[in-house]
Amino acid sequence: MRVSKYLLSTQKETPANAEVISHQLMLRAGMIRRNASGLYSWLPSGLRVLRKVEAIVREEMNNAGAVEILMPLVQPADLWMETGRWEKFGPELLRFQDRHNRDFVLGPTHEEVITDLVRKEVNSYKQLPLTLYQVQTKFRDEVRPRFGVMRAREFLMKDAYSFHLDQQTMDDTYQSMYTAYCNILERMGLEYRPVLADTGSIGGSLSHEFHVLANSGEDLIAYSTGSDYAANIEKAESPMPTTTLQAPTQELTLIDTPNAKTIAELVEQFDLDITKTVKTLIVKGSNEETPLIALIIRGDHELNEVKADKLEAVASPLEMASEAEIRAAIGAGPGSIGPIGLNIPVIIDHSVAVMSDFAAGANQDDKHYFGINWERDLPLATAADIRNVIEGEATPDGKGTYSMARGIEVGHIFQLGTNYSKAMNATVLDENGKAQVLLMGCYGVGVSRIVAAAIEQNHDDRGIIWPEAIAPFKVGILPMNMHKSHRVADIAEKLYQDLQDAGIEVLLDDRKERPGVMFADMELIGLPNVVVIGDRNIDAGMFEYKNRRTGEKQDIPFDQIVEFLKAAK
Amino acid sequence: MRVSKYLLSTQKETPANAEVISHQLMLRAGMIRRNASGLYSWLPSGLRVLRKVEAIVREEMNNAGAVEILMPLVQPADLWMETGRWEKFGPELLRFQDRHNRDFVLGPTHEEVITDLVRKEVNSYKQLPLTLYQVQTKFRDEVRPRFGVMRAREFLMKDAYSFHLDQQTMDDTYQSMYTAYCNILERMGLEYRPVLADTGSIGGSLSHEFHVLANSGEDLIAYSTGSDYAANIEKAESPMPTTTLQAPTQELTLIDTPNAKTIAELVEQFDLDITKTVKTLIVKGSNEETPLIALIIRGDHELNEVKADKLEAVASPLEMASEAEIRAAIGAGPGSIGPIGLNIPVIIDHSVAVMSDFAAGANQDDKHYFGINWERDLPLATAADIRNVIEGEATPDGKGTYSMARGIEVGHIFQLGTNYSKAMNATVLDENGKAQVLLMGCYGVGVSRIVAAAIEQNHDDRGIIWPEAIAPFKVGILPMNMHKSHRVADIAEKLYQDLQDAGIEVLLDDRKERPGVMFADMELIGLPNVVVIGDRNIDAGMFEYKNRRTGEKQDIPFDQIVEFLKAAK
Repeated sequence: MRVSKYLLSTQKETPANAEVISHQLMLRAGMIRRNASGLYSWLPSGLRVLRKVEAIVREEMNNAGAVEILMPLVQPADLWMETGRWEKFGPELLRFQDRHNRDFVLGPTHEEVITDLVRKEVNSYKQLPLTLYQVQTKFRDEVRPRFGVMRAREFLMKDAYSFHLDQQTMDDTYQSMYTAYCNILERMGLEYRPVLADTGSIGGSLSHEFHVLANSGEDLIAYSTGSDYAANIEKAESPMPTTTLQAPTQELTLIDTPNAKTIAELVEQFDLDITKTVKTLIVKGSNEETPLIALIIRGDHELNEVKADKLEAVASPLEMASEAEIRAAIGAGPGSIGPIGLNIPVIIDHSVAVMSDFAAGANQDDKHYFGINWERDLPLATAADIRNVIEGEATPDGKGTYSMARGIEVGHIFQLGTNYSKAMNATVLDENGKAQVLLMGCYGVGVSRIVAAAIEQNHDDRGIIWPEAIAPFKVGILPMNMHKSHRVADIAEKLYQDLQDAGIEVLLDDRKERPGVMFADMELIGLPNVVVIGDRNIDAGMFEYKNRRTGEKQDIPFDQIVEFLKAAK
Repeated sequence: MRVSKYLLSTQKETPANAEVISHQLMLRAGMIRRNASGLYSWLPSGLRVLRKVEAIVREEMNNAGAVEILMPLVQPADLWMETGRWEKFGPELLRFQDRHNRDFVLGPTHEEVITDLVRKEVNSYKQLPLTLYQVQTKFRDEVRPRFGVMRAREFLMKDAYSFHLDQQTMDDTYQSMYTAYCNILERMGLEYRPVLADTGSIGGSLSHEFHVLANSGEDLIAYSTGSDYAANIEKAESPMPTTTLQAPTQELTLIDTPNAKTIAELVEQFDLDITKTVKTLIVKGSNEETPLIALIIRGDHELNEVKADKLEAVASPLEMASEAEIRAAIGAGPGSIGPIGLNIPVIIDHSVAVMSDFAAGANQDDKHYFGINWERDLPLATAADIRNVIEGEATPDGKGTYSMARGIEVGHIFQLGTNYSKAMNATVLDENGKAQVLLMGCYGVGVSRIVAAAIEQNHDDRGIIWPEAIAPFKVGILPMNMHKSHRVADIAEKLYQDLQDAGIEVLLDDRKERPGVMFADMELIGLPNVVVIGDRNIDAGMFEYKNRRTGEKQDIPFDQIVEFLKAAK
């Protein structure tokens, strides 16, 4: 491709409204343009990357035995009513009526449509197991679309669905999808990690996320230093305390703490050990008799909302009580709540159950109790794992300790059980001619999101550094002053032709631009291999080669350049 | 691919609600399934064909120098307001509001979005000419979606847009797109014809349609027997009459015609020559002073509504007057209207201007005038080309006569002039630094429609007959009783592997089905080449080969089959 016939559309300035580096670089490198909030056009350089990601995903899906189909983006509402998601889904589900006033949605996902298809097309156990997938546009009407294509409203996804009559083939397919996802990310040259994940609103029993590691990642991943164990922080299990409850050494004392509204203030003003304090958080209960529930964690810990959400006594989705609700029920503000004399049910984290001589709010404004001890001052409360794990703690397999990394979720696989098939009565006849409800798995890859995630992981202050497998072009040719020097033009054109003949994707910058502009653009768009041609090089019979990632420069003789670039990574 | 791991989903019965053969066969061959009116899922066999069509279209676009991008399906309404199409477009334009009550449309086409993109990204004549294209889902909320994917609501289209500052490069690009479209249809092995077309609601000055020829086509194409001239019947020019006005030989007579409400009845009851009769059609006028206009054509001709619509005196879009309106204005019913004594403006077809001694309604119920002659009985009216051409007439280039064929429109190219760029103020600086409005071309291919059109042209009573270039697989293997005969299974598996190793796409029917079922399915899905393997063949050391199109059978020795199939078309 010649730049003169292309739409390069690079920008020097960092766009004002782009917060994350991938969004900034995708705009600056001419990969995307915004059409409206969360809606983007993919310009040529962006689309080339997107299509490469798509092709790798497709190949690995085919290798894993999945069969490609294509379902419509516009879906009839009645299927969503069958599963109840017409009501359950929030305004992210874009609903509209057609000219005949029939209800439709723009598909944010395709579980309903695929289950409907399979219940009609698959009748016999002989047709199972079956894995179908598509690469299709999705639409989610995000309340605050952001980070460019990382969280857009219209985006490209690969979604696969598998159908089974037995858990064994379900497990086998899940494993082969797990492997396919690893292959996909490895082939793209991305550093990634599969982690145990919460099944969230999709539901089901087993789930893994695939994260591209990047410091800017929205997700926190907790992984073992000594094994493969890794989980999204949402899901990572806290270790059970190894210490036991110690005998009290302090008296229970009611202390005036007028200026300590937070744990940090309390610890500072009274010179306390933060691990000898607790935080009490008030959330809504799941039934009318206990409208509020107190969750107590150690002062230095964080509540894990996903774990808390799963507690039977707690309303789902998790909702924090307002200050007014807390005052009305307890008679004190949120900063002064604690377990002693509390008139609502209490659930404590396992780590709190082994604390002694600790401090907590006294359920009176501006007062705390110090020297609290379980059993002596109040009965030990019910304990559960309701906190985030922290760095250095033991992992549940006992083989190491937790370390933390940030990641961008680009893939997610689930065992769904019969969640959807039961609601939609998707059955097939088994070997005995009996109708059996299907087991289902689902497997998603954020195709457009991978493009952004790859940039988050691979860039420097000059621009993008593409892994070769997904680079828009493998090689960039930068001829210096080719519009003035015939020699440069001739050599550049010959190299351009030779590389194309060798099946190498190449971008020739044939613009009448100053070398500085051309160099800057080439670094910005991040092609892995760059060849510079000037009169100086022609005299020497050598091209100047530069590797984008290492920055390393090398002179390559004319007659070796094609072979050199073929082999270059 | 093995059928056991595939979703073949063939059906024996002809589906009740499918009118056209391609729709029936796409359902029966397991290519598509209906999700709702005008919404389809593409099953594996259908998608394989769709992707091949898409790949050929993409290659030819790239060869023609067009650069691929991808614009969103969901488009902000404000762009449509800029061009006025927000008001002009009917309910086919699906409009909706997002969660923040902002207006959007599901794009039926992308002129607005691309013009917006180009006015922002292209600033200088140096970046021109530029042709951008995408392969993207479109949505048109058709009032009556029908014929399966032929006229679906959600469909796949390739749309390209070119931008120019001068007519010369506009013409060059138009020509290269014309050539690319010919290449696309030729490579797919389809019989097609490019025809001159009306520019319709898209607007512009020059336009060609590309039709796949098929008896079931919705469009009538008029082409020259002696040259390349071909046009959609809507656009085909009628020849000017070669005869001149003859002197009267009959008296003007008022005749009672109580039982002649139509031309056919008049001709039959009074033994008239139909070429000596005229039909008078009353349509709405374009201004208040002349609310009705009479259009007069020869009794054996048909009104061409597209030509009539373009007359200045006639309202656009063309609207026929109601019987009540006709009676109120003229005092007689639609079956008795004619030029003599008519109190509204009259436009006659050129062929009517040379008629003598002809019959027409008398503007009194149940009466006609016979023996009408221009000049003697009434002044000659204004003449224009307002009829469809008919078979055997001279074509406008004078090189042959019209012949007729039916076609399915699968491509359409336009020179748009400045229709969109002016409305959206899309300008670039020319060599003198002066802002110039861009010239635009647009070029569409109905990717999903081509799949249906190919079937309309290529089928027999047993099923589809795929041209090789777009067949879902090149070869089908039919092993007879492979579940009972190890020999058959071994040979079939080896052939399956050998063909895949040779890069040939192959479908192995490994089901436990009766041979009759397997044969019928293979004919139905229409793979071009079929290899049958039974014990008999193994004894002879020969495969039985059958060509789907010719029906011809051949025995091919085991060791020659791969080479034979490689070469097979």
